[in-house]
Amino acid sequence: MRVSRYFMPVLKENPAEAQIVSHRYMLRAGMIKQQAAGIYSWLPLGLRVLNRIQQIVHEEQVRAGHIPLLMPTLQPADLWRESGRYDDYGQEMLRIKDRQDREMLYGPTNEEMITDIFRAHVGSYKDLPLTLYHIQWKFRDEMRPRFGVMRGREFLMKDGYNFDVDKAAALHAYNRHMVSYLRTYERMGLTAIPMRADSGPIGGEDTHEFLVLAATGESEVFFDSAVTDLRLGSREVDYDNREDVAAVCKEFTTLYARTDETHDQALFDAIPEERRKVARGIEVGQIFYFGTKYSESMGATVVTADGSKVPVEMGSHGIGVSRLLGAIIEASHDDKGIIWPEGVTPFPVGIVNLKQGDAAADAACEGLYKALKAKSLEALYDDREERAGAKFATMDLIGLPWRITVGPRGLANGVVELTSRRTGVSEEMAPEAAVARIAEIYAGI
Amino acid sequence: MRVSRYFMPVLKENPAEAQIVSHRYMLRAGMIKQQAAGIYSWLPLGLRVLNRIQQIVHEEQVRAGHIPLLMPTLQPADLWRESGRYDDYGQEMLRIKDRQDREMLYGPTNEEMITDIFRAHVGSYKDLPLTLYHIQWKFRDEMRPRFGVMRGREFLMKDGYNFDVDKAAALHAYNRHMVSYLRTYERMGLTAIPMRADSGPIGGEDTHEFLVLAATGESEVFFDSAVTDLRLGSREVDYDNREDVAAVCKEFTTLYARTDETHDQALFDAIPEERRKVARGIEVGQIFYFGTKYSESMGATVVTADGSKVPVEMGSHGIGVSRLLGAIIEASHDDKGIIWPEGVTPFPVGIVNLKQGDAAADAACEGLYKALKAKSLEALYDDREERAGAKFATMDLIGLPWRITVGPRGLANGVVELTSRRTGVSEEMAPEAAVARIAEIYAGI
Repeated sequence: MRVSRYFMPVLKENPAEAQIVSHRYMLRAGMIKQQAAGIYSWLPLGLRVLNRIQQIVHEEQVRAGHIPLLMPTLQPADLWRESGRYDDYGQEMLRIKDRQDREMLYGPTNEEMITDIFRAHVGSYKDLPLTLYHIQWKFRDEMRPRFGVMRGREFLMKDGYNFDVDKAAALHAYNRHMVSYLRTYERMGLTAIPMRADSGPIGGEDTHEFLVLAATGESEVFFDSAVTDLRLGSREVDYDNREDVAAVCKEFTTLYARTDETHDQALFDAIPEERRKVARGIEVGQIFYFGTKYSESMGATVVTADGSKVPVEMGSHGIGVSRLLGAIIEASHDDKGIIWPEGVTPFPVGIVNLKQGDAAADAACEGLYKALKAKSLEALYDDREERAGAKFATMDLIGLPWRITVGPRGLANGVVELTSRRTGVSEEMAPEAAVARIAEIYAGI
Repeated sequence: MRVSRYFMPVLKENPAEAQIVSHRYMLRAGMIKQQAAGIYSWLPLGLRVLNRIQQIVHEEQVRAGHIPLLMPTLQPADLWRESGRYDDYGQEMLRIKDRQDREMLYGPTNEEMITDIFRAHVGSYKDLPLTLYHIQWKFRDEMRPRFGVMRGREFLMKDGYNFDVDKAAALHAYNRHMVSYLRTYERMGLTAIPMRADSGPIGGEDTHEFLVLAATGESEVFFDSAVTDLRLGSREVDYDNREDVAAVCKEFTTLYARTDETHDQALFDAIPEERRKVARGIEVGQIFYFGTKYSESMGATVVTADGSKVPVEMGSHGIGVSRLLGAIIEASHDDKGIIWPEGVTPFPVGIVNLKQGDAAADAACEGLYKALKAKSLEALYDDREERAGAKFATMDLIGLPWRITVGPRGLANGVVELTSRRTGVSEEMAPEAAVARIAEIYAGI
C-alpha cells in the first residue's frame, strides 16, 4: 500500500479524551474513530489488525476441530425468556422493539441461540462431540464505556460452545479450548496467563480467565512469577487425545495464578517470596464449563448409546477480539508509539523513501515494494513528499515491526537500512538482502 | 472436512415456509436457520459460501483501488438528523434507545457516517480521489420479510463511498465501480446486467442497478438479448485510466436494458423483435452518483488547487452480499439441488466413499483428501456409514460442482469416478489424475 493512496489520518496532537496509552495511540495512528460512546469505526489501519487477529483466532479454532458458523446480532427476547436470563440481565442488555412491537435484543452473548440451533438439529450422541463458534459483533450497554476499544459497547467477540455427551467429554472440550487459546495468544505475541476465575452471570463450575499483564489492567492479579516463563511454543498437540491435552492444561495451571476474585492468601504465601507477584491484568478471554444449565432449561437433549435421553453437557468460551488490539498495545509500546508483534502487524514492513522524487531512491523503493509483494508481503510504502523526520515519526507511531529506509547516499553504496522497531537497531544491507530477511522473519508467522 | 465431524444438518422434507427454490434449498442443505422473521443464523455450509462471496467482493474492490474500513452497526440518530433522513426514513429504520435514553438506530446504510469520517479527517483535494467501503451487517425492518436471505431484515451488504474533487472525477469513480462490479459478479458465475434505474430515497442523478435474470425476481426487466452475451472476461482494465474504464461502461450500457421503473416503450420497440426480451430480475447491486447531497448538508468540504473550498462530490455503491447466495441459487440449480459455480462453492469437490470400512476404499479416500489438501483444496469427504444413494443425494443437494466417487470395484481397476454436478457427466480416471484435474479447474479461481 502506498501512503499517498491510503487513508491513514494520523493525528499530531494527543486526543484529550484518551486516558490510557492504547486508546491514545489508536486514535493518533488513525486506527479508530469514535461514533458514539463506546461505538467505533475501524479505520483502514485498525481494520487490518482486527482482521489479522480474527484470522489467528479462526485458524486456531479450526485446528482444534471447532466449526465456524455465524449467528445474527439481533435475537428474539423469547429465547432468553426460556433460560430465564431476559429478566435477569439488567440494563447492560440493549432491548429493542421492532415495527411490529416484537421484543428483541442486541446479543451480548449467544448461549441461548446456539442451544436453540443445537436442539433443532442434533438428537444423538453419534453427532457429538460438537463445538460451534462464531466471531460476531456484540453489544453491552456499559454504564461507563471508556478506554477506547478496551471497554466499548459494540465489540467483536469470538464465542464458542461445546456440546458433549457427558461431563468427561465436556471437560476435554474445556481443556481443548484452553490449549487453543494459549496458542492463539502466543501467536499474537502475548503472554496471557490462565487464572482460576469466578463464573459470573453465565454460571459455571470450572472457569479460567486469560489475563495479559499490563499496568492499566482492570483486575488485580496474584501469581507465581514462574508462570510467565511457560510457553506452548511450536509443539504439536493432538486435540483428540484427552491425556495430551489435559497434560498441557496441567502444566499451565499448576503454578499459582489467580485474580482478586479467587485469590487465596494462604496458598499465595506458600510461594517462595521472590516469585510472589502482585500486578494488574487485562482479561482477553474466558472459558467456562457449565454442564446442563442451558440444555435443561431449553430442552436440548441427546440419546446416549444405551438409549436414554440426557440433557447435553455444555460450556462456552470467549475471546475479546476487538479488545485484544488495546491489550496488545498496552503490552507492547514505547513513548514513540505502538510496537506490533509480527503476528498481528497491519503491514509486515514499512518502506521510507528519504528523498521522494530522486530517481534512484524512487526506483529502489518501487523495486523493494514489488519484490516484497512477489513474496506475498504487502509493505506500507511512504511515498509522500515529506521530510524524513515526519516519515520516521509516523512509522514509529503506527508501529510496524520492521522498516526499510532508502536514500540516495546509501544507494550510492548499494545499501538500504533495515531497522527493528522493537530494538531500534539498524543494519545496512543490499536491497535484495533486506527482502530476503523480511521474508525469512515472516516465514513462520 | 469430514462429514462425520461436520455440522451440516440436511433436511429430508421440504420446509413449508419456503416459497422459492433458493430459500428451500438453503434450508434443506443446512445452510441457514431462521431465528426470527427475516433474521438468520448462517450454519457452517452457508457461512462458507458467504465468506467466499465476501472474499471476491473484497478482492475486486481492492483491485479497483478502494480502501476497506469497518463502521459499526449502530449509529447515533443525530448524524441522520444532519442530513434530514432521520425523520424521512420511515418504519424500515430500526430505532433504538440506549440506557441513557439516547436515540440510536441500526444502520440501514452509511452515507451519513462515512461523510462524518471524511469531514473529520480530510480537507484537501490532495487527499483525493478516495473511495472507502465496508462489508457490514445492516438492518431494514421490512414489513414482510420473506424469501429467506433474499429479503431479510438483518443482511450483509458491501457499501462503498467515493469522494472526489469534481463531477468528472466522481463519474470516473462511478464507472470504476461499474467495472469492478461486473468482474465481481462474473467471478461468482453470474450474468448481472447493469440497468438504468431510479434513484429512490438516497437521491441521485446517475444510477444503475445490477440484475440477475431469474423467474423469481422482484422486478420486471426489459432488455436487448444481446446484452446477455457481453463478458468482461479476463481482460485487464487500468482503473486509473478514465477513458479505458469509461469505454468498458459504454460497452455494457449501450444496449437497451431497463427495469420497469425506467422502461421506455418507444426505445424498446426500436430493438429488432427477436432480441426484445421481457423477463424478471433480482437486484444484486446498485451504483449511485449523487454529487453534493450529503457533503453540503453535513459540511464535508475540500480546498481545491486554486484555494477555494467546495463540498466534496460523492457517490455510493452497494452489493447485496447475503442476498447474493439466494440470487446465485435461483440462477443455478436443478430439481436435485443447488449447482454452485466454482467461484463461490463451499468446498471445491466432494469425495463419496461407496463402501466406508472397506480398507482399500477408505485408504483411497484418505489419499485423495490429503493430496487435495496439499494443493490447498479442502474436499468435503463423506465418510459416514451411509448407503451410496443417500450420499449422492446429499452431494447433489448441497451442490458442490465436482464429485469424486470411490468404490472397491473401480479401485480394482485403479480408477475413481469424477462427476460434474452441472452436466452429470462422469469420467473414470486414476486418483492422481482426478486430483490433477480438480487442481487445474480451480487454478484460475
